[in-house]
Amino acid sequence: MQAKRYLILAEEKSGDPHYGKTARGVVKYGTDPVVAIVDSTRAGETYRDIPIVATVDEGLRYAPTTALVGVATQGGRFPPAWRELLRICITGGLDVENGLHEFLTEDEELVALATRHGVALRDLRKPPPDLSVPTGENLEVAAHIVLTVGSDCAIGKMTVSLELDRAARGRGLASVFVPTGQTGIAIAGWGIAVDAVVADFIAGAAERLVVQGAARGGRLQWVEGQGSLSHPAYSGVTLGLMHGSAPHAFVLCHRAGSTEVEGYPGHPLPSLAELVELHERISLPARPARVVAVALNTRGLGDRDARASIAAAASETGLPADDPVRFGADRLLDAVLEHRSPQP
Amino acid sequence: MQAKRYLILAEEKSGDPHYGKTARGVVKYGTDPVVAIVDSTRAGETYRDIPIVATVDEGLRYAPTTALVGVATQGGRFPPAWRELLRICITGGLDVENGLHEFLTEDEELVALATRHGVALRDLRKPPPDLSVPTGENLEVAAHIVLTVGSDCAIGKMTVSLELDRAARGRGLASVFVPTGQTGIAIAGWGIAVDAVVADFIAGAAERLVVQGAARGGRLQWVEGQGSLSHPAYSGVTLGLMHGSAPHAFVLCHRAGSTEVEGYPGHPLPSLAELVELHERISLPARPARVVAVALNTRGLGDRDARASIAAAASETGLPADDPVRFGADRLLDAVLEHRSPQP
Repeated sequence: MQAKRYLILAEEKSGDPHYGKTARGVVKYGTDPVVAIVDSTRAGETYRDIPIVATVDEGLRYAPTTALVGVATQGGRFPPAWRELLRICITGGLDVENGLHEFLTEDEELVALATRHGVALRDLRKPPPDLSVPTGENLEVAAHIVLTVGSDCAIGKMTVSLELDRAARGRGLASVFVPTGQTGIAIAGWGIAVDAVVADFIAGAAERLVVQGAARGGRLQWVEGQGSLSHPAYSGVTLGLMHGSAPHAFVLCHRAGSTEVEGYPGHPLPSLAELVELHERISLPARPARVVAVALNTRGLGDRDARASIAAAASETGLPADDPVRFGADRLLDAVLEHRSPQP
Repeated sequence: MQAKRYLILAEEKSGDPHYGKTARGVVKYGTDPVVAIVDSTRAGETYRDIPIVATVDEGLRYAPTTALVGVATQGGRFPPAWRELLRICITGGLDVENGLHEFLTEDEELVALATRHGVALRDLRKPPPDLSVPTGENLEVAAHIVLTVGSDCAIGKMTVSLELDRAARGRGLASVFVPTGQTGIAIAGWGIAVDAVVADFIAGAAERLVVQGAARGGRLQWVEGQGSLSHPAYSGVTLGLMHGSAPHAFVLCHRAGSTEVEGYPGHPLPSLAELVELHERISLPARPARVVAVALNTRGLGDRDARASIAAAASETGLPADDPVRFGADRLLDAVLEHRSPQP
């Protein structure tokens, strides 16, 4: 079997940390190489040494095997212009991986086209067909489970989980990153997008993930968080994931300086101190969990301001705080390990 | 068009307030008549003057037009024995309405059988195809919105909403019951089962319901609650519904004496006082809501004990408390109206 080489489709979004987060996450953390990125608005530039090209045809020169839909959209549907882009990929002989809520494998025209050209369509967000409610196995998993939570979407919860996992593996720990969203799945090659399952089965899906994480050898599991408890659209996914993954500890993620939910004007963020208390109080009564550290996203700040906001977050919450992307994950990892309960 | 006459399928469950709640809710509050209930374990008895029969064939003597799957199952799938029951209904010329997560309209064999016999299959939990995230319209609905919340599933949130709606209409108020689950939908003839939508769209579905409630003339809306904030399986649905329906007030429902989540041993219920605080703190920062009354389900208690537990709940929470099924909904309705904010 040919090794996978990604061509990432990120038209108009490759520079956008929010709507282009799939593209950026796979470039930075993915196991399979990305050979080019399609974004006509930035053609000629590079992103982390990867060429950005104007069209799929140009991208084909880099011998990709697989096109990855590298953008997120509000509501998870394809912008109409994308149809043509997908057709070109398929007729160009590329498999297509898609993380939107709109499934390619249920689109008759694209399925027929893919069959004709001998390529595969994969919907990363398509849930397994046999999900149900939790069985209680989540409370019996022989692992220390850490869930990233946060003040908003797209502020770095997945990144923090990935950085902590990398640091833990670097110390020789039996650590596993547990993917709960389309980008995490594209990065790690397994997982369930908990935001795409039937609402009643969010917790059941989350339980299955930590059980699978243990089967993959994870005695320390970093579960990718989703949404936020006070998000006007996605809070249900957040709470179902919190209860179903049954974490022992939370790492609270926040983007320094944010005061309002991104894309939802008029929706203020609770303070960090309020968020700490809220998460702890709403954690499963059968598995009470503490926030053990704050991961601050200081992107865009100078080093001095970054350090000042980290110090302020630590002082406000009384918890260890750091920006693991900027300054390394060791301090946060130490905080997690220090609070680790005795293992079964 | 022939008026609908229900034959309710409740095999082994017609006496069960939890797993038989659809049957019982439709009998008590539905607009269409129920002519018989199928439950071989109680054949010969009646439920609210409706005959309970052993088989579908016996039920057909009462000239039903529509069989309603009147049970809930954990995980929402059909017990294998039910297939034969459904086949008999279809070949007997009955339409079938189903509120489980497993959809009859996606079952090739039953669809073919229904076509052959000229009957319709309806899945009450099947979500509309065009759901998405909330738009913000929920905060602009010209209505006072009241959501029932609770300490557990199946303790009477829907019933409390229905009783309050009935009492409000009795006072001439422009009141609407807003159905969010399969039983509510079977009762009211509209609604979305928010537990069956794609997880990302729970809040979007809830928003759509209050917008529709306003279009139906509801200046006072009683939104049927789902699950509970501390439920190990269903809390995601609860929080998404809380944020998407953007209520002005909560009525907190509790079954007197319960201390553990039904069906989840080892999962304690928070106290009423904790639940009041938790709901208020996690309500949408852009629409902070208060718990304005406690609805206590005192089924199984004598009158004296019922009154004592109501008094204890009132004293613990400092809120008006009552059992609206047992003692009428007026006291709770008064509490809601007293706290109603000035209308736009």
